[in-house]
Amino acid sequence: MNSASKEGYSLGEIVANFGGELIGDADILIKQAAPLSTATAEHISFLANPKYRWQLGNCKAGAVIMNITERHATDLPRILSDNPYAYFAKVSALLNPTRAEAPGVHSTTVIEQAAIIPGSATIGAFTFVGARVKIGENVVIGPGCYLGDDVVIGDDSRLYPQVVVYHNCLIGKRVILHSGVVVGADGFGLAQENGCWIKVPQIGRVTIGNDVEVGANTTVDRGALDDTVIEDGVKLDNQIQIAHNVHIGAHTAMAGCVGVAGSARIGRHCTVGGGAVILGHLEIADRVNVSAGTLITKSIAKPGEYTSVMPFSSHSEWLRNAAHLRHLDKLAKKLGEMEKKIAELERKKQ
Amino acid sequence: MNSASKEGYSLGEIVANFGGELIGDADILIKQAAPLSTATAEHISFLANPKYRWQLGNCKAGAVIMNITERHATDLPRILSDNPYAYFAKVSALLNPTRAEAPGVHSTTVIEQAAIIPGSATIGAFTFVGARVKIGENVVIGPGCYLGDDVVIGDDSRLYPQVVVYHNCLIGKRVILHSGVVVGADGFGLAQENGCWIKVPQIGRVTIGNDVEVGANTTVDRGALDDTVIEDGVKLDNQIQIAHNVHIGAHTAMAGCVGVAGSARIGRHCTVGGGAVILGHLEIADRVNVSAGTLITKSIAKPGEYTSVMPFSSHSEWLRNAAHLRHLDKLAKKLGEMEKKIAELERKKQ
Amino acid sequence: MNSASKEGYSLGEIVANFGGELIGDADILIKQAAPLSTATAEHISFLANPKYRWQLGNCKAGAVIMNITERHATDLPRILSDNPYAYFAKVSALLNPTRAEAPGVHSTTVIEQAAIIPGSATIGAFTFVGARVKIGENVVIGPGCYLGDDVVIGDDSRLYPQVVVYHNCLIGKRVILHSGVVVGADGFGLAQENGCWIKVPQIGRVTIGNDVEVGANTTVDRGALDDTVIEDGVKLDNQIQIAHNVHIGAHTAMAGCVGVAGSARIGRHCTVGGGAVILGHLEIADRVNVSAGTLITKSIAKPGEYTSVMPFSSHSEWLRNAAHLRHLDKLAKKLGEMEKKIAELERKKQ
Repeated sequence: MNSASKEGYSLGEIVANFGGELIGDADILIKQAAPLSTATAEHISFLANPKYRWQLGNCKAGAVIMNITERHATDLPRILSDNPYAYFAKVSALLNPTRAEAPGVHSTTVIEQAAIIPGSATIGAFTFVGARVKIGENVVIGPGCYLGDDVVIGDDSRLYPQVVVYHNCLIGKRVILHSGVVVGADGFGLAQENGCWIKVPQIGRVTIGNDVEVGANTTVDRGALDDTVIEDGVKLDNQIQIAHNVHIGAHTAMAGCVGVAGSARIGRHCTVGGGAVILGHLEIADRVNVSAGTLITKSIAKPGEYTSVMPFSSHSEWLRNAAHLRHLDKLAKKLGEMEKKIAELERKKQ
Repeated sequence: MNSASKEGYSLGEIVANFGGELIGDADILIKQAAPLSTATAEHISFLANPKYRWQLGNCKAGAVIMNITERHATDLPRILSDNPYAYFAKVSALLNPTRAEAPGVHSTTVIEQAAIIPGSATIGAFTFVGARVKIGENVVIGPGCYLGDDVVIGDDSRLYPQVVVYHNCLIGKRVILHSGVVVGADGFGLAQENGCWIKVPQIGRVTIGNDVEVGANTTVDRGALDDTVIEDGVKLDNQIQIAHNVHIGAHTAMAGCVGVAGSARIGRHCTVGGGAVILGHLEIADRVNVSAGTLITKSIAKPGEYTSVMPFSSHSEWLRNAAHLRHLDKLAKKLGEMEKKIAELERKKQ
Repeated sequence: MNSASKEGYSLGEIVANFGGELIGDADILIKQAAPLSTATAEHISFLANPKYRWQLGNCKAGAVIMNITERHATDLPRILSDNPYAYFAKVSALLNPTRAEAPGVHSTTVIEQAAIIPGSATIGAFTFVGARVKIGENVVIGPGCYLGDDVVIGDDSRLYPQVVVYHNCLIGKRVILHSGVVVGADGFGLAQENGCWIKVPQIGRVTIGNDVEVGANTTVDRGALDDTVIEDGVKLDNQIQIAHNVHIGAHTAMAGCVGVAGSARIGRHCTVGGGAVILGHLEIADRVNVSAGTLITKSIAKPGEYTSVMPFSSHSEWLRNAAHLRHLDKLAKKLGEMEKKIAELERKKQ
């Protein structure tokens, strides 16, 4: 766990910043965030899920952020909020500001002609900045990054070490790209001729909106002819593959290892669970939730949760059941025949 | 979208290059490729799938590449071909030549002893070239790459920034490796002893044929004893894992997020859909198509399409159906018993 | 295949090192390991799986390591062991020692203040070593790596080129991290407020025990508040995603493309097959084996093998069967009704 970056903040200061109802001493000094189970007097913790209410019993936190409905669940100093987890996120961000970097361009950086780098930006060692790249105010580019020609990075964005952005791609403001992210590699565009594959040039770009975060080793391919588009506020976890010409609507979030095939159009405020795969050339409405491990093979027009998961079981039980999966059609036909025979028997009966 | 690299080509020049039947003015100048929906007078577009024929209605393209059978589908200038998508790929490649790089070795490059780098090659900044590496004519190695000792890169190949090729691996001619690709890391070879894992040295190589393209962040492990082999013309999308001693036949293509386990032997002219997994030590015939999200657990001896997908549905519907998946065996047994009872009833009837 | 690094070892020396019963001439000189099918007189091979016993017929190996029970299966010189594959792993490691690197820090390396690098360590070109980093004895860090502030790397560990370790993470002794590995990127921690996502600072670390190996392009996220923990002897293949606060017990091994969601707690001596996904906030007992492609949605309290795989078939057969998967509930209900009718018919019969 990190130690806090400064002297800390009093509960009074916290409530002055973020609102909520404080029950307890406003002078209590909070230095860091911690879970209920390990927090001590200088920590602030949170209770967002009633399932963990029992942990309040032994909790030694300096204060707990909790729902208004939990007002009487503890005697500890507490801040009541109608969204305790979001409140906690803000307090933790206050206690743990992004690691500051001294502005400036490292002496080893290679900068091609006509690149624009403001004095407030930080460019790490061994980073390559292509021709005509335009970097915004307060941008931090870690060591070992590559920005192709004509890339634009919006204000206050941060690229962790070893991010690659191919030529012409646009990154918005306050964007976070984690290490190993590759933005703008060629989409998988192939035509077939005489049994061989011919590469279709990928001349679109990737445009990434504001407030987007992309996890480590995730890839977002450039468009074939038009652009691949990631709208504002989208959050992508690690190891995700976004193919060419995909369009992801604002504030959609995807967990690790998701794959989205070419030209899929995904709505706003969607969530996609880990390991899910979304096929190409389909449309998914706003506010659709795709369960982990689910394969989406057709467009979805209505909000709601969608699932295609085979339940797991012990291998021996699975063996017994799985055998029938290959014969469901026969089984269903047999059922139909039996139904007829029963009807016949019933008819004769009367 | 990119602007074109030169003055453009007339339809006459295009047909002179690639054949096909031109209907319209041979002097029309084409500067760039674009989709039917956004093309203007200086663009060439294509119609490969009759499903999009309606888009011809409002199309403003300077010309359209289309199937001979679509001859009368538009009055626009058009080139008729029996493979319009492959034709389009070639025209787009003509209009969008690979970005040229000035040959030469960047001053920051580190080159170990006895490496061979011809004058026609380009080596980017911060790239490490191991001992005895042999680089072919016109090869372009992007910034931040790593080539281990004794690596060979064939003529006209291109490594985008931050590609890693471990020692001894062989890369063919006209190969494209996108950023984040790792070729030749150790395969997952482990022996068990007293509950602990002992590493089995991975002393094979990876050999990659000619005209192979490998997408961003894909990994191809070196062989345990023999080599891992990727034959000519294979196309791998992003985020794919190819384990040790896999053999992929010529002109096979795999979409994103596919995993192929150790010693699997995959035929020629196969396709593997996104997120599919192919288990190890099995053989897949030529011209097999594996559907997206499918798990291949046994060898496949016959060409054709293979699938193992659970259809998705709304979560509530899924819940109702999935419950029975764990009890298919009981259900099938019950069916058998009922069948006997019906036979018994029918027997008594007579 | 690699050539051996030195003159080789006699069978006598090998048995003196690792035990086992030698049948044959102790002076036979072995220079390299090879499979049964391609081994020649200077190679040692192994037979671990009786399935491959037939390959002994044409085998030309200088010696074969095999199970005691196979004593009479060949006339070739042989070493009998009760664990031939582990024995082979050790012999191969003797014949193929890790590639030695001359100790020292490359002139291009950037080292921040107060980093500790012993004289026995090797730091490659273009590597960035953050402030107060502590590197152990005989550590080899490849070119192009990034170590954030306060990272600790234990003795005898090896980071291949282009590994990223974020600040504060701890790496044990004899750890191997392959190229493209990212340790300690932010976990996917998000709170929702008014339809937007708020980032929850990720202030935990990653701690990796001793003797861990992590494959190419695998990612291990830092903890949200507490740490993400990888215990001793864990082996992770390529392209794996380990989310924040996951805990992986000692000597557990995971194959390629596995995803483990946040706060999952996985026991010791488990194995997880390729492409499997383990959901978050659940517990998996020691000695659990998860099959390839399986989705684990609930805690598992008992050792054993667990599976959730839809068997693959030809696409046309799949189409026929899959249609019924969406109607299993109706099918089961119909079965129930038929059962009642049969009972009624039988009752009337009597």
